[in-house]
Amino acid sequence: MDLQCPAPLSRHETVQMAHGAGGVMSRELTRNVFLPFFGNSMLDMLDDQARISLESGNIAFTTDTFVVSPLFFPGGNIGDLAVNGTVNDLAVGGALPLYLSAGFVIEEGFRLSGLTKIVAAMADAAAEAGVSIVTGDTKVVGKGQCDGIFINTSGIGVIRDGVDLSCNNLREGDAILVSGSLGDHGMAVMTAREGLSFQSEIASDTMALNRMISSILHEVPEVHAMRDPTRGGLASTLNELAEASGKGIVIEEDCLPVKPEVQGACELLGIDPLTVANEGKVVVAVRGDRAEKVLRIMQSHEDATSGRASIIGAVVNEHPGMVIVRTGLGGRRILEMPLGEQLPRIC
Amino acid sequence: MDLQCPAPLSRHETVQMAHGAGGVMSRELTRNVFLPFFGNSMLDMLDDQARISLESGNIAFTTDTFVVSPLFFPGGNIGDLAVNGTVNDLAVGGALPLYLSAGFVIEEGFRLSGLTKIVAAMADAAAEAGVSIVTGDTKVVGKGQCDGIFINTSGIGVIRDGVDLSCNNLREGDAILVSGSLGDHGMAVMTAREGLSFQSEIASDTMALNRMISSILHEVPEVHAMRDPTRGGLASTLNELAEASGKGIVIEEDCLPVKPEVQGACELLGIDPLTVANEGKVVVAVRGDRAEKVLRIMQSHEDATSGRASIIGAVVNEHPGMVIVRTGLGGRRILEMPLGEQLPRIC
Repeated sequence: MDLQCPAPLSRHETVQMAHGAGGVMSRELTRNVFLPFFGNSMLDMLDDQARISLESGNIAFTTDTFVVSPLFFPGGNIGDLAVNGTVNDLAVGGALPLYLSAGFVIEEGFRLSGLTKIVAAMADAAAEAGVSIVTGDTKVVGKGQCDGIFINTSGIGVIRDGVDLSCNNLREGDAILVSGSLGDHGMAVMTAREGLSFQSEIASDTMALNRMISSILHEVPEVHAMRDPTRGGLASTLNELAEASGKGIVIEEDCLPVKPEVQGACELLGIDPLTVANEGKVVVAVRGDRAEKVLRIMQSHEDATSGRASIIGAVVNEHPGMVIVRTGLGGRRILEMPLGEQLPRIC
Repeated sequence: MDLQCPAPLSRHETVQMAHGAGGVMSRELTRNVFLPFFGNSMLDMLDDQARISLESGNIAFTTDTFVVSPLFFPGGNIGDLAVNGTVNDLAVGGALPLYLSAGFVIEEGFRLSGLTKIVAAMADAAAEAGVSIVTGDTKVVGKGQCDGIFINTSGIGVIRDGVDLSCNNLREGDAILVSGSLGDHGMAVMTAREGLSFQSEIASDTMALNRMISSILHEVPEVHAMRDPTRGGLASTLNELAEASGKGIVIEEDCLPVKPEVQGACELLGIDPLTVANEGKVVVAVRGDRAEKVLRIMQSHEDATSGRASIIGAVVNEHPGMVIVRTGLGGRRILEMPLGEQLPRIC
């Protein structure tokens, strides 16, 4: 009789259905691929939940699933994107990001070498941001039942005492800043997907912003609100701020930092760069007389801003709920909330 | 000129790519489908993160992505399954489940009526378990890029003072209990998927166990470990307990509660019911002299146990890391950790 032995993971080059079924092969995937990169005292327990001791019970909690296509793009991949995105969602709420979960849905046949690259990028991004991945889950679905890999990251951070950031806090005279150039991530993914090439490669700005945000909040308590302009870009973020606060926002078109190669790609594809996703930028609303201070702190985090941090506009009492762009020639146009079709699977 | 107006959600019967793009239509989906069911003061803020005040910083944190197929099965759907699964993962760690996140990946063209049913089931399950869904995310992928809908739920609970559950706590003489019949969920999904019908319909046991577990922990501090036997079934759970504790486990086959219709379906499909997923059962290891007390508490939660709570075995110092089943005729066999292929996409 020819008995079939359980095949160890090392014999496989791709993910199999059995890697997601909770038995021997699930355990092997966890031990051979995830733990070597993510390992820490909480995750190593391999319990159904991580037990955490926080200094305070005032926490921020967020979740995001990443379905970006292609999985690898100039400047990053779905792994670092998934970590940085959730770190930033915590940071813009005024929280110190600490712990992340990672939930994988993997298509049968996905190459283990690709999975390992993604997991390594997650581990590097987590180390860079100072967070730990403490709990996780892996599901495998059949060939054609998902597109490669989807990753959910949820995150927990502790909210600093005295920090109260909210769209409702916007006041007339607040300055609006953005920490760097707009549209880099979305156009990096789009041009990679469409196979377009430009003289200068467009790279994603995926990056954890928690250290820069921490400096800003530490030094400038007059910050009223922060958001990271991801899906829907600056246009969505500003409209959300205006609508939630019942204030108007005026933006100076000449002050908007957009790299020439991003502008060129947008024109080619007929896309407004203000509606394109960013993954390493923050929009800040701060009392007007403190705007220069915030700008200098942003500029001191050169890696995060590429020298393009800018004061781009102001909060007004007029036209509540609306965002107006003033053009260089003295014209004015309404910056609308994008409807949303242009850029699917950008994050 | 024939301007095309933004189409309101009510004009659509299915989910469109634009519903996941962070603009007007994303907002409509959130406001018209999610908020009416999940709405609470934290979620209603629609910030990128929920801000939560917990009584203690000792918390449990867990994540699970649900990819069950079919989405609707006897006894439940992917929605209540996703809520109950994460509630149970917190509860078996000794935590009081409080807050959940919900991350959706939806296939373009998915019917809004189906999504609404799923969301309603999540809301009902959350209310039943006493938890709130406080933060969420929705991604839409193209036709054929995922299989209907995948849902990630992550959860936070506060760990009770003095509760210390861990596989490492297992001691010789501990009794092993299971709170009800085995294999119901997995076989409900399998028979629904395969279109098999039996005289008695097999229904999933999906259910939140936090109230029953809370009673047990309150009244019996001598509980050493708890696990919910989901993927890989009782066989995986017992092997994990044995391996992590370095103890042996002996199970009495005659004491294992398996419904006749589940046994019949398993025989037909050539599957061992001990390897089949449960979604509303808990395995408890407790000091032997307190086993009867735990059993009575389980039995008092009739809805969760269907009168089938059982003491099924004991922890021994012999054969460390191994699980032995004693058959009615005095035989003994090793219960191995399942390899994992048999039942894909069961949760």
